[in-house]
Amino acid sequence: MLKQIVGIGLVVISASGVISVSAQQAEPTPEELAAQAADTRQSLFKLLRYNLNMISGMARGTVAFDAAVAERNANRIAELAPMIPELFAADTRAYNIETEALPIIWDRMDEFTEKANNLVNAANTFAATARGGERNAILGGIRAFGGACGNCHETFRED
Amino acid sequence: MLKQIVGIGLVVISASGVISVSAQQAEPTPEELAAQAADTRQSLFKLLRYNLNMISGMARGTVAFDAAVAERNANRIAELAPMIPELFAADTRAYNIETEALPIIWDRMDEFTEKANNLVNAANTFAATARGGERNAILGGIRAFGGACGNCHETFRED
Repeated sequence: MLKQIVGIGLVVISASGVISVSAQQAEPTPEELAAQAADTRQSLFKLLRYNLNMISGMARGTVAFDAAVAERNANRIAELAPMIPELFAADTRAYNIETEALPIIWDRMDEFTEKANNLVNAANTFAATARGGERNAILGGIRAFGGACGNCHETFRED
Repeated sequence: MLKQIVGIGLVVISASGVISVSAQQAEPTPEELAAQAADTRQSLFKLLRYNLNMISGMARGTVAFDAAVAERNANRIAELAPMIPELFAADTRAYNIETEALPIIWDRMDEFTEKANNLVNAANTFAATARGGERNAILGGIRAFGGACGNCHETFRED
């Protein structure tokens, strides 16, 4: 997992034709790799929240209900959710990095994975509901989905 | 767009039952909203790179070829790519924020949107290729897709 993050700069840079820049870069240290892994995790949760937030805004009445936006965002959430267990495969406990991920994630990886998989299932269930297009089902479904988020945060995320 | 970002904390926090925390938060300033918008954009590009990088690693021979991973990641990229024009709808030119997004994005929004839409089309084309499961088609396809990334970066992203 971490190995695969090393070359991140290369793809985009070589697409612009400036390969020499990345050829000069030193190999990242284990701590730098851990920080990158945490940063990728945080990016994932930010995008999940961004997409979730529009729909929960509809449930709270702060955003106008839009079935097409709900469906689009629910599909994105379902596509992204499986990245949670994938990205936490990199154990960053040993490193001094900025993260809200508690070390017990890796002490209790079976429980963490189970909760993450429950979230993936909840995301798929919600996406199916959203494809149905029914306002009340969608707005009720997003509350249930939010519960699956909180169920993991209360144990594994810093307050 | 910016309005919808305001309540990001609320969703997750209310899922944990700590609603009072967010009720006490002041409304974010326009500059804070712009910084949040830039942060969400950066999260998007990080996740795109993370998923792209595994496949381009296969093309470079640094990651073992895995058709299932290529298909999974290509589907994620296709799901995420339409967020590019969506997130850049928030014009952050006026604010002093950390970003590699050049101000000309908003000066030349038509051109930017066209290039972003070309990227979305390239992502869908590549996802279709990846679903075919053929090694050579996938590894050739990812190079073409990388070109669509670079085509926008060379004009609209800081070097």
